[in-house]
Amino acid sequence: MLAQSIRFTKMHGLGNDFAVFDAINQPLDFNEQLVRQLADRHEGIGFDQLLLVEPHAGDDADFRYRIFNADGSEVEHCGNGARCFARFVYEQGLTQKTRIPVMTESGRIVLELTADGQVTVNMGIPRLEPAEIPFIFQARQMLYTVDLGQDAVQFAAVSMGNPHAVLQVADTQAAPVESLGASLESHPLFPKRVNVGFMQVINPQQIRLRVFERGTGETRACGTGACAAVVAGRLQGLLAEQVQVDLPGGRLQIAWQGEGQPVYMTGPATTVYTGTVTV
Amino acid sequence: MLAQSIRFTKMHGLGNDFAVFDAINQPLDFNEQLVRQLADRHEGIGFDQLLLVEPHAGDDADFRYRIFNADGSEVEHCGNGARCFARFVYEQGLTQKTRIPVMTESGRIVLELTADGQVTVNMGIPRLEPAEIPFIFQARQMLYTVDLGQDAVQFAAVSMGNPHAVLQVADTQAAPVESLGASLESHPLFPKRVNVGFMQVINPQQIRLRVFERGTGETRACGTGACAAVVAGRLQGLLAEQVQVDLPGGRLQIAWQGEGQPVYMTGPATTVYTGTVTV
Repeated sequence: MLAQSIRFTKMHGLGNDFAVFDAINQPLDFNEQLVRQLADRHEGIGFDQLLLVEPHAGDDADFRYRIFNADGSEVEHCGNGARCFARFVYEQGLTQKTRIPVMTESGRIVLELTADGQVTVNMGIPRLEPAEIPFIFQARQMLYTVDLGQDAVQFAAVSMGNPHAVLQVADTQAAPVESLGASLESHPLFPKRVNVGFMQVINPQQIRLRVFERGTGETRACGTGACAAVVAGRLQGLLAEQVQVDLPGGRLQIAWQGEGQPVYMTGPATTVYTGTVTV
Repeated sequence: MLAQSIRFTKMHGLGNDFAVFDAINQPLDFNEQLVRQLADRHEGIGFDQLLLVEPHAGDDADFRYRIFNADGSEVEHCGNGARCFARFVYEQGLTQKTRIPVMTESGRIVLELTADGQVTVNMGIPRLEPAEIPFIFQARQMLYTVDLGQDAVQFAAVSMGNPHAVLQVADTQAAPVESLGASLESHPLFPKRVNVGFMQVINPQQIRLRVFERGTGETRACGTGACAAVVAGRLQGLLAEQVQVDLPGGRLQIAWQGEGQPVYMTGPATTVYTGTVTV
Protein backbone atom coordinates (compact mmCIF):
# COMPACT_ATOMS: atom_id res chain seq x y z
CA MET A 1 0.00 0.00 0.00
CA LEU A 2 1.19 3.52 -0.77
CA ALA A 3 1.94 5.82 2.12
CA GLN A 4 -0.89 8.30 2.73
CA SER A 5 -0.88 11.57 4.70
CA ILE A 6 -4.02 12.00 6.76
CA ARG A 7 -5.19 14.94 8.82
CA PHE A 8 -6.59 14.63 12.33
CA THR A 9 -7.46 16.78 15.35
CA LYS A 10 -6.51 15.88 18.90
CA MET A 11 -9.24 16.75 21.41
CA HIS A 12 -10.30 15.92 24.94
CA GLY A 13 -13.39 16.05 27.11
CA LEU A 14 -12.39 16.42 30.77
CA GLY A 15 -9.14 14.54 30.09
CA ASN A 16 -10.72 11.66 28.12
CA ASP A 17 -8.74 12.11 24.90
CA PHE A 18 -9.47 11.47 21.23
CA ALA A 19 -7.95 11.65 17.77
CA VAL A 20 -10.77 12.78 15.46
CA PHE A 21 -10.60 11.98 11.74
CA ASP A 22 -12.72 13.52 8.98
CA ALA A 23 -13.60 10.59 6.70
CA ILE A 24 -15.80 12.79 4.50
CA ASN A 25 -13.07 14.90 2.89
CA GLN A 26 -10.29 12.32 2.85
CA PRO A 27 -10.32 8.59 2.07
CA LEU A 28 -9.65 6.58 5.23
CA ASP A 29 -9.25 2.86 5.65
CA PHE A 30 -8.65 1.97 9.29
CA ASN A 31 -8.19 -1.55 10.52
CA GLU A 32 -7.68 -2.88 14.03
CA GLN A 33 -3.90 -3.05 13.73
CA LEU A 34 -3.62 0.55 12.44
CA VAL A 35 -5.84 1.87 15.25
CA ARG A 36 -3.69 0.10 17.85
CA GLN A 37 -0.53 1.51 16.24
CA LEU A 38 -1.92 5.08 16.20
CA ALA A 39 -3.18 4.72 19.81
CA ASP A 40 0.31 3.98 21.15
CA ARG A 41 1.26 6.94 23.33
CA HIS A 42 5.01 6.63 22.59
CA GLU A 43 5.22 5.44 19.00
CA GLY A 44 1.86 6.73 17.69
CA ILE A 45 -0.50 9.68 18.24
CA GLY A 46 -1.77 8.39 21.57
CA PHE A 47 -5.47 8.49 22.54
CA ASP A 48 -8.15 6.74 24.58
CA GLN A 49 -10.43 6.48 21.54
CA LEU A 50 -10.34 7.22 17.83
CA LEU A 51 -13.41 9.04 16.49
CA LEU A 52 -14.44 8.81 12.87
CA VAL A 53 -16.69 11.35 11.12
CA GLU A 54 -18.37 9.53 8.24
CA PRO A 55 -21.08 10.66 5.84
CA HIS A 56 -24.57 9.34 6.54
CA ALA A 57 -27.08 8.51 3.83
CA GLY A 58 -30.63 9.48 4.79
CA ASP A 59 -32.51 12.37 6.31
CA ASP A 60 -32.52 11.16 9.90
CA ALA A 61 -28.86 12.07 10.63
CA ASP A 62 -26.17 14.35 9.16
CA PHE A 63 -23.15 12.21 10.08
CA ARG A 64 -22.22 8.73 11.12
CA TYR A 65 -20.24 8.73 14.40
CA ARG A 66 -17.94 5.75 14.90
CA ILE A 67 -15.73 5.06 17.92
CA PHE A 68 -12.74 2.75 18.22
CA ASN A 69 -11.03 1.90 21.49
CA ALA A 70 -7.23 1.96 21.74
CA ASP A 71 -7.22 -1.85 21.32
CA GLY A 72 -8.87 -1.47 17.89
CA SER A 73 -12.33 -2.70 18.87
CA GLU A 74 -15.37 -0.67 17.78
CA VAL A 75 -17.72 0.52 20.55
CA GLU A 76 -21.23 1.98 20.51
CA HIS A 77 -21.21 5.19 22.47
CA CYS A 78 -18.91 7.49 24.39
CA GLY A 79 -20.35 10.64 25.97
CA ASN A 80 -17.05 12.52 26.26
CA GLY A 81 -16.30 11.61 22.66
CA ALA A 82 -19.72 12.75 21.46
CA ARG A 83 -19.03 16.25 22.81
CA CYS A 84 -15.73 16.37 20.90
CA PHE A 85 -17.42 14.99 17.77
CA ALA A 86 -19.99 17.83 17.81
CA ARG A 87 -17.37 20.51 18.34
CA PHE A 88 -15.17 19.03 15.59
CA VAL A 89 -17.83 18.94 12.84
CA TYR A 90 -18.87 22.50 13.74
CA GLU A 91 -15.35 23.96 13.96
CA GLN A 92 -14.27 22.24 10.74
CA GLY A 93 -17.26 23.77 8.93
CA LEU A 94 -18.78 20.35 8.15
CA THR A 95 -22.06 21.71 9.48
CA GLN A 96 -23.56 25.10 10.31
CA LYS A 97 -26.12 23.57 12.67
CA THR A 98 -25.76 23.77 16.44
CA ARG A 99 -28.25 20.91 16.87
CA ILE A 100 -26.60 17.98 15.10
CA PRO A 101 -28.30 14.62 14.55
CA VAL A 102 -25.77 11.79 14.23
CA MET A 103 -26.07 8.05 13.76
CA THR A 104 -24.13 5.77 16.10
CA GLU A 105 -23.80 1.98 16.23
CA SER A 106 -26.53 1.98 18.87
CA GLY A 107 -28.90 4.42 17.14
CA ARG A 108 -29.51 8.09 16.42
CA ILE A 109 -28.49 10.76 18.93
CA VAL A 110 -28.71 14.54 18.80
CA LEU A 111 -25.73 16.63 19.90
CA GLU A 112 -26.34 20.26 20.81
CA LEU A 113 -23.74 23.02 20.97
CA THR A 114 -24.57 25.51 23.72
CA ALA A 115 -23.93 29.25 23.56
CA ASP A 116 -20.90 29.00 25.87
CA GLY A 117 -19.14 26.43 23.68
CA GLN A 118 -20.13 23.35 25.66
CA VAL A 119 -22.03 20.41 24.20
CA THR A 120 -25.19 18.65 25.39
CA VAL A 121 -25.52 14.93 24.67
CA ASN A 122 -28.62 12.78 24.99
CA MET A 123 -27.26 9.81 26.93
CA GLY A 124 -30.38 7.68 26.56
CA ILE A 125 -32.96 6.34 29.00
CA PRO A 126 -31.56 4.71 32.14
CA ARG A 127 -32.52 1.08 32.76
CA LEU A 128 -33.32 0.08 36.33
CA GLU A 129 -34.53 -3.52 36.25
CA PRO A 130 -31.83 -5.87 37.63
CA ALA A 131 -31.91 -8.07 34.51
CA GLU A 132 -31.28 -5.04 32.26
CA ILE A 133 -28.18 -3.93 34.16
CA PRO A 134 -27.30 -6.95 34.40
CA PHE A 135 -27.43 -7.59 38.15
CA ILE A 136 -28.49 -10.91 39.66
CA PHE A 137 -31.23 -9.87 42.12
CA GLN A 138 -34.83 -11.04 42.41
CA ALA A 139 -36.63 -7.71 42.22
CA ARG A 140 -35.86 -4.08 41.60
CA GLN A 141 -35.12 -2.02 44.73
CA MET A 142 -34.09 1.58 45.32
CA LEU A 143 -31.06 0.35 47.26
CA TYR A 144 -29.47 -3.07 47.31
CA THR A 145 -27.38 -4.52 50.12
CA VAL A 146 -24.63 -6.94 49.22
CA ASP A 147 -22.29 -8.83 51.52
CA LEU A 148 -18.59 -8.41 50.74
CA GLY A 149 -17.13 -10.84 53.27
CA GLN A 150 -16.42 -8.62 56.28
CA ASP A 151 -18.59 -5.67 55.23
CA ALA A 152 -22.04 -5.19 53.79
CA VAL A 153 -22.34 -2.44 51.21
CA GLN A 154 -25.44 -0.55 50.07
CA PHE A 155 -25.86 0.90 46.59
CA ALA A 156 -28.23 1.78 43.77
CA ALA A 157 -27.89 -0.04 40.43
CA VAL A 158 -28.41 1.74 37.09
CA SER A 159 -27.63 0.90 33.48
CA MET A 160 -26.67 3.78 31.15
CA GLY A 161 -25.97 1.26 28.40
CA ASN A 162 -23.27 0.01 30.78
CA PRO A 163 -23.77 -1.19 34.38
CA HIS A 164 -23.25 1.15 37.36
CA ALA A 165 -23.39 0.72 41.11
CA VAL A 166 -23.74 4.05 42.94
CA LEU A 167 -22.79 4.35 46.61
CA GLN A 168 -23.52 7.41 48.70
CA VAL A 169 -20.55 8.54 50.83
CA ALA A 170 -20.02 11.35 53.32
CA ASP A 171 -16.76 12.46 51.68
CA THR A 172 -15.44 11.37 48.27
CA GLN A 173 -11.89 12.26 49.34
CA ALA A 174 -11.98 9.62 52.06
CA ALA A 175 -13.90 7.01 50.02
CA PRO A 176 -12.12 3.64 49.48
CA VAL A 177 -12.48 3.95 45.69
CA GLU A 178 -9.73 1.52 44.68
CA SER A 179 -10.36 -1.23 47.24
CA LEU A 180 -14.17 -1.22 47.39
CA GLY A 181 -14.40 -0.41 43.66
CA ALA A 182 -12.32 -3.47 42.81
CA SER A 183 -14.27 -5.85 45.09
CA LEU A 184 -17.65 -4.71 43.81
CA GLU A 185 -16.54 -4.52 40.14
CA SER A 186 -15.85 -8.26 40.03
CA HIS A 187 -18.65 -9.39 42.38
CA PRO A 188 -20.40 -12.50 40.98
CA LEU A 189 -23.80 -10.74 41.20
CA PHE A 190 -22.66 -8.56 38.26
CA PRO A 191 -22.13 -11.03 35.39
CA LYS A 192 -20.73 -8.27 33.09
CA ARG A 193 -18.90 -6.63 36.01
CA VAL A 194 -19.85 -3.12 37.11
CA ASN A 195 -18.63 0.49 37.24
CA VAL A 196 -18.68 1.80 40.80
CA GLY A 197 -19.50 5.43 41.63
CA PHE A 198 -18.91 7.12 45.00
CA MET A 199 -21.29 10.06 45.32
CA GLN A 200 -21.20 12.83 47.93
CA VAL A 201 -24.36 14.96 47.92
CA ILE A 202 -23.42 18.60 48.57
CA ASN A 203 -26.97 19.88 48.04
CA PRO A 204 -29.85 18.95 45.69
CA GLN A 205 -28.14 20.82 42.83
CA GLN A 206 -24.58 19.59 43.36
CA ILE A 207 -22.71 16.34 43.94
CA ARG A 208 -19.07 15.26 44.03
CA LEU A 209 -18.31 11.97 42.30
CA ARG A 210 -15.42 9.53 41.89
CA VAL A 211 -15.84 6.50 39.60
CA PHE A 212 -14.01 3.19 39.48
CA GLU A 213 -14.38 2.00 35.86
CA ARG A 214 -14.63 -1.67 34.88
CA GLY A 215 -11.26 -3.02 33.78
CA THR A 216 -9.53 0.35 34.21
CA GLY A 217 -9.68 1.56 37.80
CA GLU A 218 -10.43 5.13 38.84
CA THR A 219 -10.82 7.57 35.95
CA ARG A 220 -10.91 11.35 35.92
CA ALA A 221 -14.34 11.90 34.39
CA CYS A 222 -16.78 9.10 33.61
CA GLY A 223 -19.75 10.56 31.70
CA THR A 224 -22.10 7.59 32.09
CA GLY A 225 -21.06 7.41 35.77
CA ALA A 226 -22.19 11.02 36.27
CA CYS A 227 -25.55 10.21 34.65
CA ALA A 228 -26.00 7.05 36.74
CA ALA A 229 -25.22 8.92 39.97
CA VAL A 230 -27.81 11.63 39.25
CA VAL A 231 -30.42 9.02 38.33
CA ALA A 232 -29.71 7.11 41.57
CA GLY A 233 -29.76 10.32 43.64
CA ARG A 234 -33.01 11.52 42.09
CA LEU A 235 -34.76 8.19 42.64
CA GLN A 236 -33.77 8.47 46.32
CA GLY A 237 -35.25 11.97 46.50
CA LEU A 238 -31.87 13.59 47.13
CA LEU A 239 -31.41 15.60 43.93
CA ALA A 240 -33.12 18.20 41.73
CA GLU A 241 -33.78 17.92 37.99
CA GLN A 242 -30.54 19.71 37.08
CA VAL A 243 -27.40 18.70 38.93
CA GLN A 244 -23.80 19.88 38.74
CA VAL A 245 -21.44 16.91 39.02
CA ASP A 246 -17.89 17.66 40.14
CA LEU A 247 -15.51 14.92 39.02
CA PRO A 248 -11.72 14.86 39.57
CA GLY A 249 -11.25 15.86 35.89
CA GLY A 250 -13.80 18.69 35.87
CA ARG A 251 -17.47 19.55 35.85
CA LEU A 252 -20.51 18.10 34.04
CA GLN A 253 -24.14 19.27 34.13
CA ILE A 254 -26.65 16.41 34.22
CA ALA A 255 -30.38 16.86 33.65
CA TRP A 256 -33.01 14.17 34.12
CA GLN A 257 -36.78 14.67 34.35
CA GLY A 258 -37.45 11.21 35.72
CA GLU A 259 -38.24 7.62 34.85
CA GLY A 260 -38.75 6.84 31.18
CA GLN A 261 -36.96 10.07 30.18
CA PRO A 262 -33.47 10.34 28.68
CA VAL A 263 -30.55 11.80 30.64
CA TYR A 264 -28.86 14.91 29.19
CA MET A 265 -25.19 15.54 29.85
CA THR A 266 -23.59 18.95 29.20
CA GLY A 267 -19.83 19.50 29.34
CA PRO A 268 -16.74 20.90 27.65
CA ALA A 269 -14.89 19.71 24.54
CA THR A 270 -11.36 21.01 24.00
CA THR A 271 -9.25 21.10 20.84
CA VAL A 272 -5.56 20.51 21.62
CA TYR A 273 -3.80 20.43 18.24
CA THR A 274 -4.18 19.52 14.58
CA GLY A 275 -1.84 17.02 12.97
CA THR A 276 -0.88 15.15 9.82
CA VAL A 277 0.23 11.54 10.12
CA THR A 278 1.61 9.31 7.37
CA VAL A 279 0.24 5.78 7.43
CA MET B 1 -0.69 37.04 25.90
CA LEU B 2 -2.08 36.51 22.40
CA ALA B 3 -2.73 32.94 21.28
CA GLN B 4 0.02 31.68 18.97
CA SER B 5 -0.02 28.72 16.57
CA ILE B 6 3.23 26.77 16.66
CA ARG B 7 4.40 23.88 14.54
CA PHE B 8 6.07 20.77 15.95
CA THR B 9 7.03 17.24 14.92
CA LYS B 10 6.37 14.17 17.05
CA MET B 11 9.23 11.65 16.91
CA HIS B 12 10.57 8.68 18.84
CA GLY B 13 13.80 6.77 19.24
CA LEU B 14 13.02 3.17 20.21
CA GLY B 15 9.84 4.28 21.96
CA ASN B 16 11.40 7.20 23.88
CA ASP B 17 9.19 9.98 22.49
CA PHE B 18 9.68 13.66 21.79
CA ALA B 19 7.92 16.78 20.54
CA VAL B 20 10.52 18.69 18.49
CA PHE B 21 10.12 22.45 17.96
CA ASP B 22 11.98 24.59 15.43
CA ALA B 23 12.83 27.80 17.32
CA ILE B 24 14.77 29.20 14.35
CA ASN B 25 11.84 29.83 12.00
CA GLN B 26 9.18 30.63 14.59
CA PRO B 27 9.34 32.65 17.81
CA LEU B 28 8.98 30.37 20.84
CA ASP B 29 8.79 31.23 24.48
CA PHE B 30 8.50 28.12 26.62
CA ASN B 31 8.28 28.16 30.36
CA GLU B 32 8.09 25.30 32.85
CA GLN B 33 4.30 25.48 33.16
CA LEU B 34 3.77 25.43 29.37
CA VAL B 35 6.11 22.44 28.95
CA ARG B 36 4.22 20.52 31.64
CA GLN B 37 0.90 21.38 29.99
CA LEU B 38 2.12 20.24 26.54
CA ALA B 39 3.64 17.06 28.03
CA ASP B 40 0.30 15.87 29.43
CA ARG B 41 -0.66 12.74 27.49
CA HIS B 42 -4.41 13.36 27.77
CA GLU B 43 -4.82 17.14 27.67
CA GLY B 44 -1.63 18.08 25.78
CA ILE B 45 0.62 16.65 23.04
CA GLY B 46 2.17 14.03 25.31
CA PHE B 47 5.92 13.28 25.30
CA ASP B 48 8.82 12.11 27.45
CA GLN B 49 10.90 15.17 26.49
CA LEU B 50 10.48 18.38 24.53
CA LEU B 51 13.40 19.14 22.16
CA LEU B 52 14.17 22.67 21.07
CA VAL B 53 16.18 23.53 17.93
CA GLU B 54 17.74 26.95 18.54
CA PRO B 55 20.22 28.94 16.47
CA HIS B 56 23.81 28.91 17.72
CA ALA B 57 26.15 31.88 17.40
CA GLY B 58 29.72 30.82 16.60
CA ASP B 59 31.60 28.49 14.28
CA ASP B 60 31.89 25.54 16.67
CA ALA B 61 28.26 24.37 16.29
CA ASP B 62 25.38 24.81 13.82
CA PHE B 63 22.52 24.54 16.33
CA ARG B 64 21.81 24.73 20.00
CA TYR B 65 20.07 21.56 21.27
CA ARG B 66 17.95 22.01 24.39
CA ILE B 67 15.99 19.30 26.22
CA PHE B 68 13.13 19.68 28.69
CA ASN B 69 11.69 16.83 30.73
CA ALA B 70 7.93 16.39 31.01
CA ASP B 71 8.06 18.10 34.44
CA GLY B 72 9.45 21.26 32.79
CA SER B 73 13.01 20.96 34.05
CA GLU B 74 15.86 21.44 31.56
CA VAL B 75 18.34 18.54 31.26
CA GLU B 76 21.77 18.23 29.64
CA HIS B 77 21.74 15.27 27.29
CA CYS B 78 19.48 12.56 25.97
CA GLY B 79 20.87 10.06 23.48
CA ASN B 80 17.53 8.95 22.02
CA GLY B 81 16.58 12.62 21.69
CA ALA B 82 19.86 13.52 19.98
CA ARG B 83 19.11 11.01 17.19
CA CYS B 84 15.69 12.58 16.65
CA PHE B 85 17.22 16.07 16.76
CA ALA B 86 19.64 15.18 13.94
CA ARG B 87 16.96 13.64 11.79
CA PHE B 88 14.64 16.60 12.38
CA VAL B 89 17.10 19.34 11.33
CA TYR B 90 18.06 17.32 8.23
CA GLU B 91 14.48 16.43 7.18
CA GLN B 92 13.27 19.99 7.77
CA GLY B 93 16.04 21.30 5.53
CA LEU B 94 17.65 23.29 8.35
CA THR B 95 20.98 21.74 7.30
CA GLN B 96 22.37 19.85 4.32
CA LYS B 97 25.17 18.31 6.42
CA THR B 98 25.06 14.69 7.56
CA ARG B 99 27.70 15.41 10.22
CA ILE B 100 26.04 18.01 12.45
CA PRO B 101 27.86 19.77 15.30
CA VAL B 102 25.43 20.92 17.99
CA MET B 103 25.86 22.69 21.31
CA THR B 104 24.20 21.18 24.38
CA GLU B 105 24.05 22.37 27.98
CA SER B 106 26.95 20.03 28.74
CA GLY B 107 29.09 20.94 25.71
CA ARG B 108 29.50 20.35 21.98
CA ILE B 109 28.53 17.03 20.41
CA VAL B 110 28.58 15.83 16.80
CA LEU B 111 25.59 13.94 15.42
CA GLU B 112 26.09 11.84 12.30
CA LEU B 113 23.39 10.62 9.94
CA THR B 114 24.29 7.22 8.51
CA ALA B 115 23.49 6.05 4.97
CA ASP B 116 20.64 3.81 6.21
CA GLY B 117 18.85 6.68 7.98
CA GLN B 118 20.11 5.93 11.47
CA VAL B 119 22.03 8.42 13.62
CA THR B 120 25.34 8.07 15.48
CA VAL B 121 25.76 10.06 18.69
CA ASN B 122 28.95 10.66 20.64
CA MET B 123 27.84 9.80 24.17
CA GLY B 124 31.03 11.04 25.87
CA ILE B 125 33.82 9.37 27.80
CA PRO B 126 32.68 6.90 30.49
CA ARG B 127 33.81 7.60 34.05
CA LEU B 128 34.91 4.65 36.15
CA GLU B 129 36.23 6.01 39.45
CA PRO B 130 33.71 5.38 42.26
CA ALA B 131 33.69 9.07 43.26
CA GLU B 132 32.79 10.11 39.71
CA ILE B 133 29.77 7.78 39.50
CA PRO B 134 29.05 8.56 42.46
CA PHE B 135 29.44 5.27 44.33
CA ILE B 136 30.74 5.04 47.90
CA PHE B 137 33.57 2.52 47.60
CA GLN B 138 37.24 2.84 48.57
CA ALA B 139 38.88 1.97 45.26
CA ARG B 140 37.94 1.25 41.68
CA GLN B 141 37.35 -2.42 40.87
CA MET B 142 36.24 -4.27 37.76
CA LEU B 143 33.39 -5.82 39.74
CA TYR B 144 31.94 -4.77 43.08
CA THR B 145 30.11 -7.03 45.53
CA VAL B 146 27.38 -5.48 47.65
CA ASP B 147 25.28 -7.11 50.35
CA LEU B 148 21.52 -6.72 49.90
CA GLY B 149 20.32 -8.35 53.11
CA GLN B 150 19.77 -11.98 52.11
CA ASP B 151 21.74 -11.88 48.86
CA ALA B 152 25.06 -10.49 47.72
CA VAL B 153 25.07 -9.00 44.24
CA GLN B 154 28.01 -8.43 41.89
CA PHE B 155 28.13 -5.65 39.32
CA ALA B 156 30.28 -3.18 37.41
CA ALA B 157 29.77 0.56 38.00
CA VAL B 158 30.00 3.10 35.15
CA SER B 159 29.01 6.74 34.75
CA MET B 160 27.78 7.89 31.32
CA GLY B 161 26.99 11.29 32.80
CA ASN B 162 24.51 9.35 34.94
CA PRO B 163 25.29 6.41 37.25
CA HIS B 164 24.89 2.79 36.10
CA ALA B 165 25.33 -0.58 37.79
CA VAL B 166 25.66 -3.41 35.25
CA LEU B 167 24.96 -7.02 36.27
CA GLN B 168 25.71 -9.99 34.06
CA VAL B 169 22.85 -12.51 33.90
CA ALA B 170 22.38 -15.86 32.15
CA ASP B 171 18.98 -14.86 30.73
CA THR B 172 17.46 -11.36 30.68
CA GLN B 173 13.94 -12.84 30.43
CA ALA B 174 14.35 -14.48 33.83
CA ALA B 175 16.24 -11.59 35.47
CA PRO B 176 14.55 -10.02 38.55
CA VAL B 177 14.63 -6.54 36.95
CA GLU B 178 11.91 -4.89 39.05
CA SER B 179 12.81 -6.32 42.46
CA LEU B 180 16.62 -6.27 42.27
CA GLY B 181 16.56 -3.04 40.24
CA ALA B 182 14.54 -1.31 42.94
CA SER B 183 16.73 -2.53 45.83
CA LEU B 184 19.96 -1.53 44.12
CA GLU B 185 18.60 1.77 42.76
CA SER B 186 18.06 3.12 46.26
CA HIS B 187 21.04 1.45 47.97
CA PRO B 188 22.83 3.91 50.31
CA LEU B 189 26.16 3.28 48.54
CA PHE B 190 24.73 5.24 45.55
CA PRO B 191 24.10 8.75 46.92
CA LYS B 192 22.45 9.89 43.65
CA ARG B 193 20.76 6.49 43.21
CA VAL B 194 21.66 4.31 40.22
CA ASN B 195 20.31 2.89 36.96
CA VAL B 196 20.56 -0.90 36.94
CA GLY B 197 21.30 -2.88 33.78
CA PHE B 198 20.86 -6.65 33.36
CA MET B 199 23.15 -7.86 30.56
CA GLN B 200 23.14 -11.26 28.86
CA VAL B 201 26.22 -11.81 26.66
CA ILE B 202 25.20 -13.72 23.53
CA ASN B 203 28.63 -13.47 21.92
CA PRO B 204 31.38 -10.78 21.84
CA GLN B 205 29.40 -8.84 19.19
CA GLN B 206 25.93 -9.10 20.76
CA ILE B 207 24.22 -8.63 24.12
CA ARG B 208 20.65 -8.53 25.38
CA LEU B 209 19.89 -5.83 27.93
CA ARG B 210 17.09 -4.75 30.23
CA VAL B 211 17.46 -1.53 32.27
CA PHE B 212 15.76 -0.37 35.46
CA GLU B 213 15.92 3.44 35.31
CA ARG B 214 16.23 5.64 38.39
CA GLY B 215 12.87 6.96 39.51
CA THR B 216 11.04 5.32 36.58
CA GLY B 217 11.38 1.53 36.66
CA GLU B 218 12.08 -0.64 33.64
CA THR B 219 12.17 1.27 30.34
CA ARG B 220 12.11 0.00 26.79
CA ALA B 221 15.40 1.41 25.54
CA CYS B 222 17.88 3.24 27.75
CA GLY B 223 20.66 4.68 25.55
CA THR B 224 23.14 5.45 28.34
CA GLY B 225 22.38 2.02 29.81
CA ALA B 226 23.39 0.36 26.53
CA CYS B 227 26.66 2.34 26.54
CA ALA B 228 27.38 1.48 30.20
CA ALA B 229 26.76 -2.22 29.57
CA VAL B 230 29.18 -2.35 26.64
CA VAL B 231 31.82 -0.45 28.64
CA ALA B 232 31.41 -2.87 31.55
CA GLY B 233 31.47 -5.91 29.26
CA ARG B 234 34.57 -4.72 27.40
CA LEU B 235 36.49 -3.99 30.61
CA GLN B 236 35.74 -7.59 31.67
CA GLY B 237 37.08 -8.88 28.33
CA LEU B 238 33.69 -10.19 27.23
CA LEU B 239 32.95 -7.91 24.29
CA ALA B 240 34.38 -6.66 21.00
CA GLU B 241 34.80 -3.01 19.96
CA GLN B 242 31.43 -2.96 18.16
CA VAL B 243 28.47 -4.51 19.91
CA GLN B 244 24.83 -4.91 18.97
CA VAL B 245 22.59 -4.28 21.98
CA ASP B 246 19.09 -5.77 21.87
CA LEU B 247 16.76 -3.91 24.21
CA PRO B 248 13.02 -4.60 24.68
CA GLY B 249 12.27 -1.52 22.52
CA GLY B 250 14.70 -2.34 19.71
CA ARG B 251 18.33 -2.41 18.67
CA LEU B 252 21.29 -0.07 19.24
CA GLN B 253 24.86 -0.37 17.96
CA ILE B 254 27.48 0.65 20.52
CA ALA B 255 31.15 1.23 19.68
CA TRP B 256 33.90 1.86 22.22
CA GLN B 257 37.65 1.68 21.59
CA GLY B 258 38.54 1.59 25.27
CA GLU B 259 39.42 3.70 28.29
CA GLY B 260 39.71 7.42 27.73
CA GLN B 261 37.73 7.19 24.47
CA PRO B 262 34.13 8.31 23.90
CA VAL B 263 31.31 5.81 23.37
CA TYR B 264 29.40 6.00 20.07
CA MET B 265 25.77 4.98 19.92
CA THR B 266 23.98 4.32 16.61
CA GLY B 267 20.23 3.79 16.35
CA PRO B 268 16.96 4.75 14.67
CA ALA B 269 14.95 7.98 14.83
CA THR B 270 11.33 7.85 13.67
CA THR B 271 8.99 10.67 12.63
CA VAL B 272 5.39 9.97 13.72
CA TYR B 273 3.41 13.08 12.74
CA THR B 274 3.59 16.85 12.33
CA GLY B 275 1.26 19.11 14.26
CA THR B 276 0.18 22.66 14.99
CA VAL B 277 -0.73 23.58 18.53
CA THR B 278 -2.21 26.86 19.76
CA VAL B 279 -0.68 28.09 23.03
